[in-house]
Amino acid sequence: MSVLEEVLAANEAYAAGFGDRGGLALPPARGFAILTCMDARLDPAGYAGLSEGDAHVIRNAGGRASDDAIRSLVISYKLLGTKEWFVVHHTDCGMEFFTNDVIAGLLDSSLETAALGPDGFTDVGAGPGSDAGHDIDWLTIADQSGAVVDDVSRIRAHPLVPKSIPVYGYLYDVKTGRLVEVPEATEAGRAD
Amino acid sequence: MSVLEEVLAANEAYAAGFGDRGGLALPPARGFAILTCMDARLDPAGYAGLSEGDAHVIRNAGGRASDDAIRSLVISYKLLGTKEWFVVHHTDCGMEFFTNDVIAGLLDSSLETAALGPDGFTDVGAGPGSDAGHDIDWLTIADQSGAVVDDVSRIRAHPLVPKSIPVYGYLYDVKTGRLVEVPEATEAGRAD
Repeated sequence: MSVLEEVLAANEAYAAGFGDRGGLALPPARGFAILTCMDARLDPAGYAGLSEGDAHVIRNAGGRASDDAIRSLVISYKLLGTKEWFVVHHTDCGMEFFTNDVIAGLLDSSLETAALGPDGFTDVGAGPGSDAGHDIDWLTIADQSGAVVDDVSRIRAHPLVPKSIPVYGYLYDVKTGRLVEVPEATEAGRAD
Repeated sequence: MSVLEEVLAANEAYAAGFGDRGGLALPPARGFAILTCMDARLDPAGYAGLSEGDAHVIRNAGGRASDDAIRSLVISYKLLGTKEWFVVHHTDCGMEFFTNDVIAGLLDSSLETAALGPDGFTDVGAGPGSDAGHDIDWLTIADQSGAVVDDVSRIRAHPLVPKSIPVYGYLYDVKTGRLVEVPEATEAGRAD
């Protein structure tokens, strides 16, 4: 089966056992939101114990507090009433393994393309070729805990984020499945 | 228990049953990515049949193809080798129920704040008060299927996205758990 066929077959099975979940309300029942990484190894519903309807989950490369993540968080509280937020980065994040210059270089029209695989960077064929990679801040991570502190602090300082919302900072350990607090981040995200 | 205590207790149980998942590789084993909404009722691992390690999941308010979502998708293919992408919006999305003017107005310092709850908008107390809400494009949705087409098209046209990646467009039905194709979107996202 193709990936598309596999996804649609899995969805058939999910829908067949959907039960009464069709009656869930739009606002998150447990009133919180998680900002975390897109990494394939992370299942926020699993690691944080979420059922459908419980909490907003925002994910991007790195779990970074980008403008778009903050757009989503502000909507989460302002339109849908969440009152507590988690920022969860993780160990062994792909965002630690390159810099803005490296990815801009990989995307340059003049270079062969490559992808980071289990055996390191391997050729994945020619990409579209564009200088646009130089104009993007890829939000790479130089320091795991420091990036959590930075992101919690950025959220805390945003003019549209109320000081009444606590923002907790955690690192998810991909070797153990465990959430490990970054105390300096949680402190920076303390509610007034 | 507080939300924080509940999350940490659920995480203890998850980690206790983590088994051999600590050995998963960083690149997504099944080579694809899903861009979808942060909505609490959506569990992409459930509706698309994902296990830990399978696929990247990017989520924001609306599942929109924001600059940040495209940043994440480009990293997904370029550094981590994904070859197919899904854009999955959903029925009854909160992003259909307001406009840029409405949320900017709600965020104005001069107005009382409100949140959309099961019974409509209700007061949630004074927010931080800022004009910053007027400077943000909140990426609201006026037309469900049209927004999927727009987002797939925006991804397809991006200079850093290779034409070899098919981008599929779907709506998730929150009443049934079913993925419903938006054929015009999938057509717009066809690989060359």
